[in-house]
Amino acid sequence: MNEIKDSKKCLQSWLERIQEKRPLLECLTNVVTINDVANVILACGASPVMADAADEVPDFVNIASGVIINVGTMQNRGSYEIAMRYAQEYGKPVVLDPVGVGAAKARTTLTTALLRRYPCAVIRGNASEIRTLAEGAGETKGVDAAVGDAVTEETIPARLAVVKAVANRWHCTVAMSGAIDLISDGKVSYACRNGVPWMSNVTGTGCSLTGLTGAFAAVAEKSEMAEAAAYATAMMGMAGEAAYAKAKSLGLGSFRVYLIDALSTILEQDVQPRLELL
Amino acid sequence: MNEIKDSKKCLQSWLERIQEKRPLLECLTNVVTINDVANVILACGASPVMADAADEVPDFVNIASGVIINVGTMQNRGSYEIAMRYAQEYGKPVVLDPVGVGAAKARTTLTTALLRRYPCAVIRGNASEIRTLAEGAGETKGVDAAVGDAVTEETIPARLAVVKAVANRWHCTVAMSGAIDLISDGKVSYACRNGVPWMSNVTGTGCSLTGLTGAFAAVAEKSEMAEAAAYATAMMGMAGEAAYAKAKSLGLGSFRVYLIDALSTILEQDVQPRLELL
Amino acid sequence: MNEIKDSKKCLQSWLERIQEKRPLLECLTNVVTINDVANVILACGASPVMADAADEVPDFVNIASGVIINVGTMQNRGSYEIAMRYAQEYGKPVVLDPVGVGAAKARTTLTTALLRRYPCAVIRGNASEIRTLAEGAGETKGVDAAVGDAVTEETIPARLAVVKAVANRWHCTVAMSGAIDLISDGKVSYACRNGVPWMSNVTGTGCSLTGLTGAFAAVAEKSEMAEAAAYATAMMGMAGEAAYAKAKSLGLGSFRVYLIDALSTILEQDVQPRLELL
Repeated sequence: MNEIKDSKKCLQSWLERIQEKRPLLECLTNVVTINDVANVILACGASPVMADAADEVPDFVNIASGVIINVGTMQNRGSYEIAMRYAQEYGKPVVLDPVGVGAAKARTTLTTALLRRYPCAVIRGNASEIRTLAEGAGETKGVDAAVGDAVTEETIPARLAVVKAVANRWHCTVAMSGAIDLISDGKVSYACRNGVPWMSNVTGTGCSLTGLTGAFAAVAEKSEMAEAAAYATAMMGMAGEAAYAKAKSLGLGSFRVYLIDALSTILEQDVQPRLELL
Repeated sequence: MNEIKDSKKCLQSWLERIQEKRPLLECLTNVVTINDVANVILACGASPVMADAADEVPDFVNIASGVIINVGTMQNRGSYEIAMRYAQEYGKPVVLDPVGVGAAKARTTLTTALLRRYPCAVIRGNASEIRTLAEGAGETKGVDAAVGDAVTEETIPARLAVVKAVANRWHCTVAMSGAIDLISDGKVSYACRNGVPWMSNVTGTGCSLTGLTGAFAAVAEKSEMAEAAAYATAMMGMAGEAAYAKAKSLGLGSFRVYLIDALSTILEQDVQPRLELL
Repeated sequence: MNEIKDSKKCLQSWLERIQEKRPLLECLTNVVTINDVANVILACGASPVMADAADEVPDFVNIASGVIINVGTMQNRGSYEIAMRYAQEYGKPVVLDPVGVGAAKARTTLTTALLRRYPCAVIRGNASEIRTLAEGAGETKGVDAAVGDAVTEETIPARLAVVKAVANRWHCTVAMSGAIDLISDGKVSYACRNGVPWMSNVTGTGCSLTGLTGAFAAVAEKSEMAEAAAYATAMMGMAGEAAYAKAKSLGLGSFRVYLIDALSTILEQDVQPRLELL
């Protein structure tokens, strides 16, 4: 494994861009983790709006620098198409989180239909969700990745092929989250080895990473989307490592609090991006 | 009071069952405490899905091991009947939380109608809510129990009669939460003396207990439902005691965090189930 | 600046009134911060209900001592008019939070229409939102105040004129939150200098203040509304100061937890109201 050198400096320069621009993100997200997503976006220096009513989305996409669509609870599904249409019209990057795609037909169909019609800057999901988008069908257990889809050192080549297939099919960057994260725009590909298992024991770490990716995407050039997604992924994993170091003797409630602490102070934390160019 | 012996070992064996099976719980719950419910379910080793759209509920009930219905905010009420119908068809236990029943007509009517038509494994609510289900009408102050409904050592016999009446009427286990908790399936009855008053000073402890009860119910045989609900109730109260010990000099924000900490590490906490067979 | 003397004793007497009456607040609020709003209301000794379905709102307004309407996510907008109508009929004070008014047409139009038809006890918002209500149009960046609207020592007279104009136009108390908060009913006016910048780096401090203001308004006489809103504002800022002292070396996750801690123990915290009669 050849980790990228000076990656913490590179992360710092991404965060400086975010804190300089303070991008507004229009977020259509689920009601389970909506508060975490807003706080994570604030913690990195960006600004969230979660107004998802169909007649308001165009106004908010217009003033935003990026759009997040997370299909977790689908109660606001009528606004997804509107948000993607206006994002296309106004040239704002969309980060899509296909939560639970593969587990229920309605969301699989809807997500695929959206991808067919509108451009997307980044798709971020777990291995089962990304595989579903590659194959048009998949097996997931609720909103968690199926065990058989896990990314290990041995399965990196096979999983990366899936990531690239989805990236090429939809002309976007794809970030597959797991024990090892894989990120690719079809040409440039990254593996990220940050993170801890506890991150899947609190709800919202995936949705929060999608929010963080939205902040990075909102300050990225089109050609930088894979790098943006890779550094957002690394930052989330680093925060998990820093939080775990403090919370492991306490429990999951403290872990969640320290995650936000770590995100808001990530450059001062004693953790490093563990990114490899594949 | 004759506390059940070896009750902590018994709780441990329930938790081992949950962590072995990692049951998926399809949760139709309120938007106020939805995040807490998800985190509590994760903290005990189960897995939550909160997707409540009518056209997705059948798919999720199908892959789930149990169903939770909490009528707290009613925004998803159109899905309750679908969830209970499919739970009956697929043989999944339903845990129902009749939040605020008695305080507004719409929810009283709807909840009673659901109970008339579909089986329920456990009903968990406060004393005013359970009394409303027994009498068809009741008096509650919002979502908290009325003072006149409090369970004290003196009122145990009268309150237990109400619990048993509801259990017998709907052929299910009933868990009435309060200073003393009463749980009964009409034959086997428990009193639980765990918990601290601060638990009613943060929102969501009742909803969280409903989630926890769902995890226990999902790994229980039908004949064990009262025991499952009793141990879930004890575990929540124990977590409250452990959290209060750490948070009492700090405040309610810390208390809420330590509650989740304690739930995720309950066997290591210096607290015991205080369960009595009545 | 002439700070009001004995202001902490005055805050104490407000809190005693709240804890004596334990007012029930019917809250129609946004889904992003709904949990925080409920917990803040509980932390000061009042009791929240967030049931927002149109057919239930009349029942809950009837048993409540006050009503909160926060237009943050608008998913429950069909209930606003019902809540305000029944609040008028039953004589319950309404606290309105015009979140994001000025940023999207739909909410500006709706909020203004509500104010034209129904009485409101307190409007609480940021400078851009209040200016929009004064001028019928405004510029905001999402849900945060525009930089040009900031309240500084120099701009107090100009901003206070806006606050008074809105108060006089809608015959209510107006609380404009910012680095310096301005509160007026058109006759009595306050400046509040409590608070810390971190309060705008976590989501929900504005919504939480609206909830807190609802608790104070629910125990206030009509003639005391400006004082009620001023002390609620001071209490929120004091909690921010106390939380920042503990969290500044940790991060934003801890800050949010300590905010609730401080609200639930505000009289024991080493912070003072910094209120001035203008």
